[in-house]
Amino acid sequence: MNIIDKLYDRVEKRGVVCVGLDTAIDYVPDHIKEGRSISEAIFEFNKQIIDATYDVSACFKVQIAYYEALGLEGLNAYKKTLDYLRSKDEIIIADIKRGDIAATAKMYAKAHLEGDFEADFVTLSPYMGMDSIEPYMPYFENGKKGAFVLVRTSNPGADDIECLDVTTGKKVFEVVADKLSEMSKECIGECGYAPVGGVIGCTHVEEGKKIRESYNNMFFLIPGYGAQGGTAEDVALYLKDGNGGVVNSSRGILLAYKKVGKPEEFAACAREEAIKMRDAIREAVKR
Amino acid sequence: MNIIDKLYDRVEKRGVVCVGLDTAIDYVPDHIKEGRSISEAIFEFNKQIIDATYDVSACFKVQIAYYEALGLEGLNAYKKTLDYLRSKDEIIIADIKRGDIAATAKMYAKAHLEGDFEADFVTLSPYMGMDSIEPYMPYFENGKKGAFVLVRTSNPGADDIECLDVTTGKKVFEVVADKLSEMSKECIGECGYAPVGGVIGCTHVEEGKKIRESYNNMFFLIPGYGAQGGTAEDVALYLKDGNGGVVNSSRGILLAYKKVGKPEEFAACAREEAIKMRDAIREAVKR
Repeated sequence: MNIIDKLYDRVEKRGVVCVGLDTAIDYVPDHIKEGRSISEAIFEFNKQIIDATYDVSACFKVQIAYYEALGLEGLNAYKKTLDYLRSKDEIIIADIKRGDIAATAKMYAKAHLEGDFEADFVTLSPYMGMDSIEPYMPYFENGKKGAFVLVRTSNPGADDIECLDVTTGKKVFEVVADKLSEMSKECIGECGYAPVGGVIGCTHVEEGKKIRESYNNMFFLIPGYGAQGGTAEDVALYLKDGNGGVVNSSRGILLAYKKVGKPEEFAACAREEAIKMRDAIREAVKR
Repeated sequence: MNIIDKLYDRVEKRGVVCVGLDTAIDYVPDHIKEGRSISEAIFEFNKQIIDATYDVSACFKVQIAYYEALGLEGLNAYKKTLDYLRSKDEIIIADIKRGDIAATAKMYAKAHLEGDFEADFVTLSPYMGMDSIEPYMPYFENGKKGAFVLVRTSNPGADDIECLDVTTGKKVFEVVADKLSEMSKECIGECGYAPVGGVIGCTHVEEGKKIRESYNNMFFLIPGYGAQGGTAEDVALYLKDGNGGVVNSSRGILLAYKKVGKPEEFAACAREEAIKMRDAIREAVKR
């Protein structure tokens, strides 16, 4: 089964929520930290979050920066988290945003689509051009792996490069999206989407509609829900019949326990938050 | 001492060579591999290369992708290599090309400018905009650390995004370089360069001259010498009086032993190659 069909299928069955495991050590409640090393505490926290949310989520996005920041010990927790997700047959998006070319890109592909840090999807940065994406194609063409490439993000800095107007009449991010669509048109799955998707932030209504219509075969990874300001209505614009994208929430889910002041129930609070998010987006899609 | 002044000083004293430690396990000769784990073999190879080249080189660039590809064991060799370089007071450029924003960028800064993987400079990707560079500014402002941001690379894919013509009359990479210059003008070192430099590949003569003149305070990290086709004459265009940049060679130096078929003398061959490169660029600068 093509990995993009698997992801599509998960969204059909479980909804669009992507649980972001951007786990900082200060997110972990004291009772989990007690008697554990940093690496063990982070893994234990992730494990309980995964167990509490997997059946109401499409996939998990693991932000490697949080683990790299803790050095080898952090990367050990990263590996254990990925191993655990794989053992449960959960879909893993490694949020690595790597962007390099030639032999180096092949090394990154090997690093994150095989071996210790094997994921199902990686996030990639296209600044150096399409030869920073092409070295991953063999993994996409056999249907086993996929990627989400940075296209249009919702941070203020998106104006600096992504939204520059090119003399051809397009914006930079549209040039990127066009090239990605062209590049992946031979490996579209049965669900109608390609395994090379785009990272698309929620911005404004007109742009959202235009992006969804223009890139019909592109599956979207949509960050910024909740803590970063995106609403269910914003998100619905980027979906097609409630599929064609996954919506990431990290702190909104991981730290849901802080809103009710119940650290010992962090996993149950995360589950409740994921369900609330899933249902709010389902409702918004219907409207 | 500001890190950029230290690098400038090294170039004055030792020349412009940056030794690229993009160490794949198949670069390591058998006699080094024998009786060692992969991690130990890579570190031992790097250590001997460092010992043989440091006094004829300005700095070392360590390409993390090669180490990530070997998982935790590879990253252990990466850490040991960085530790060893630091113990010798050598300047380290961590070639990580990370590009993310906000809390995530701060985590990457913590990961690669502190802790297990502490380097002096990191390479960064600007696709998401200047808010993917700003979180590193506190490290630059106190003069302790620096960065090289992807600006204009020499791979074919550079045409895809970097060289797009923007409606303002600039190219995308010029927009990036302008913003970097603006951002770092308050922290220029005594040498006249800012600690936020640019990754600039060798392309063609007119462009090289224009880039050097336009970005007077920008220190360049120039990849692509030797194995990737750049000549001493190409490189000289991007320097100012033989300084203002470092020129990276990885395979050219690491695999110099293969040209003469003397694996047991890999370190001496690397030294010879680094000296040859340094002198060829010195000559070209004079012309």
